[in-house]
Amino acid sequence: MYTDRQNKIIAYLDQQEFDGIVLNAGPSLTYFTGLHFHLSERPVVCVIAAGSAPLLILPELEQAKLEHCSFALNPFSYPDDPARWPDVFKQAFAHLGATDKRFGIEPRQLRMLESSLISQAAGDISFAEADDAIATCRTIKDASEIEKMERAVAIAQDSLQATLPVITEGITEQEIAAELVIQLLRHRSEPNLPFSPIVAAGPNGANPHAQPSERVLQNGDLLIIDWGASWQGYTSDLTRTFAIGPVSDNAKEIHSLVYRANEAGRKAAAPGIACLEVDRAARAVITDGGYGPEFRHRTGHGLGMECHEEPYIHDANTQLLEAGMTFTVEPGIYLQGTHGVRIEDDVVITPDGSRSLSDISRELICIKF
Amino acid sequence: MYTDRQNKIIAYLDQQEFDGIVLNAGPSLTYFTGLHFHLSERPVVCVIAAGSAPLLILPELEQAKLEHCSFALNPFSYPDDPARWPDVFKQAFAHLGATDKRFGIEPRQLRMLESSLISQAAGDISFAEADDAIATCRTIKDASEIEKMERAVAIAQDSLQATLPVITEGITEQEIAAELVIQLLRHRSEPNLPFSPIVAAGPNGANPHAQPSERVLQNGDLLIIDWGASWQGYTSDLTRTFAIGPVSDNAKEIHSLVYRANEAGRKAAAPGIACLEVDRAARAVITDGGYGPEFRHRTGHGLGMECHEEPYIHDANTQLLEAGMTFTVEPGIYLQGTHGVRIEDDVVITPDGSRSLSDISRELICIKF
Repeated sequence: MYTDRQNKIIAYLDQQEFDGIVLNAGPSLTYFTGLHFHLSERPVVCVIAAGSAPLLILPELEQAKLEHCSFALNPFSYPDDPARWPDVFKQAFAHLGATDKRFGIEPRQLRMLESSLISQAAGDISFAEADDAIATCRTIKDASEIEKMERAVAIAQDSLQATLPVITEGITEQEIAAELVIQLLRHRSEPNLPFSPIVAAGPNGANPHAQPSERVLQNGDLLIIDWGASWQGYTSDLTRTFAIGPVSDNAKEIHSLVYRANEAGRKAAAPGIACLEVDRAARAVITDGGYGPEFRHRTGHGLGMECHEEPYIHDANTQLLEAGMTFTVEPGIYLQGTHGVRIEDDVVITPDGSRSLSDISRELICIKF
Repeated sequence: MYTDRQNKIIAYLDQQEFDGIVLNAGPSLTYFTGLHFHLSERPVVCVIAAGSAPLLILPELEQAKLEHCSFALNPFSYPDDPARWPDVFKQAFAHLGATDKRFGIEPRQLRMLESSLISQAAGDISFAEADDAIATCRTIKDASEIEKMERAVAIAQDSLQATLPVITEGITEQEIAAELVIQLLRHRSEPNLPFSPIVAAGPNGANPHAQPSERVLQNGDLLIIDWGASWQGYTSDLTRTFAIGPVSDNAKEIHSLVYRANEAGRKAAAPGIACLEVDRAARAVITDGGYGPEFRHRTGHGLGMECHEEPYIHDANTQLLEAGMTFTVEPGIYLQGTHGVRIEDDVVITPDGSRSLSDISRELICIKF
């Protein structure tokens, strides 16, 4: 499988006149090699190029990870003293015969740490963004990847259901978040969650990226919960909004708009449709309802090994959706000082439309103290 | 507090003829500003320079985070469409009057994403590593930082104690790891743990960076548990090794060596001592015991807002320890195919020596099924 993926990216890169790709520790390296490395102060660099086995520069103490590697690999390992790293990089790039070559990189992943070690080792190498080539491989999920994402969604949904009973009088946002994380682990999410859950009630819900606070939930609050699970390296990312006791008419109005915007976004998603059309379909509902400026972010983002990846669902992205692409649809309305609503689902493009991997109720469920 | 920290780094940078520092989302940005941003596909860049308020380039949807900012800041926010980001970067750097200037960066943090946006915005800016200047500020912890680390250590120790009772016949490494994470959260660790616990038994313990597997614990195993907690942005990182039922003489021998190496490393640590001397003190015990090559990594790493930060305790680091520095002492012996031992404590340099923040028993405790 990994050799197939490597051959595919080499073929894409060749069309764009790249001599290969340089990956550092992160999900793309895992996607193309099956090897897991954390991004740390010890650089890990993999070079995939035509005509030779992939080359891997790694710390000596990580070598055990190569034991079960399913394909030929040229490892170059270095000891803990950073003064010795440049020599190992030089040996590795010399082995590659990498003079005057042009390598693709991931600008969101490659750091100055790795890029300057590579430049020192092979000064005439040039780098260019290869996000498109990588995305072409990674955005189209195969059946086994979709299955892992479905499991990540199921774990997330079951975990939320198990958390709801703790939401009783006197509980804080932080306490709900802690219980939700515990339930995610009890339901066998991998411990590296895609992100720490957002639990934001009342005025805190007006901040799309709120951190759970010590605020005690109040009757009349809207409660946003944004959470996800990991399963075998794949993620889920969902949001639901609840009512704590009776809520205002405005709360019901904006929930209803976001509910319909979420539905419109999901319904618009299909092969051959541009990402921006999904954004516009969702946004139109909210704009028509009079809250356009309060929908303060894009409609969604790709989802897979990373919680945020391509394709991004915003109003300037002309990229066309294809079967196998997976992304979130998550419109929201944020009223500063008052409250907010967001409803987020994980969607996969099918040959003739799209399907939501998530099906937990999107209604405004009332939690009574 | 943040203004003091900003003034301190500006003063250090000035000595090294830097015009300021460029930070992206990450712990240093938090250290100098108190603002939290995740490293994501949306770049966040802060420029701290003499003569003007810090400048912050950020996504529009993160602006709410600035509400409680305790000092003057020049924010430049951008919408979700990446095509519009270069203009916002240009405006920001134009405001700074940043022509022909030299800025410090963090090579382990700054990505090609941010560096190329900055280069496009201000082509004549040059970058140079400023790890030393940042480390000079961040490595010396003040009393409030040490207090947070003590709390992170206490949470970790209590969580391990609460986990040990589940280690009974038939349990797997993964199940122990899941329970430990749950206990960390129950004991109020922040949900973004410094790392996913390592639980490695028998031959898996011979890999210093093993991932918990589905292997069922066996009588005679050595069991390594490497875990940590987060408290108010500060981390702990501990390791203990247990015996599952009666273990071999070799297991006892290497545990005893690592126990004494850990003690020797901690005792060597004091102000004015070089990092390499701590490494050598710990390593000498293991080398004298005949297992030098099997102690396959450095003796430790700095610890604070990051789980791995300066100072690094390896045999080539001549940096002198100073009061307030915090780091791990974690010697280990790894016997391929058989088992491993590691014992890790978190140490702070005091005016006249050092003190371990961790005090949970380092003995080879036997867990009987």
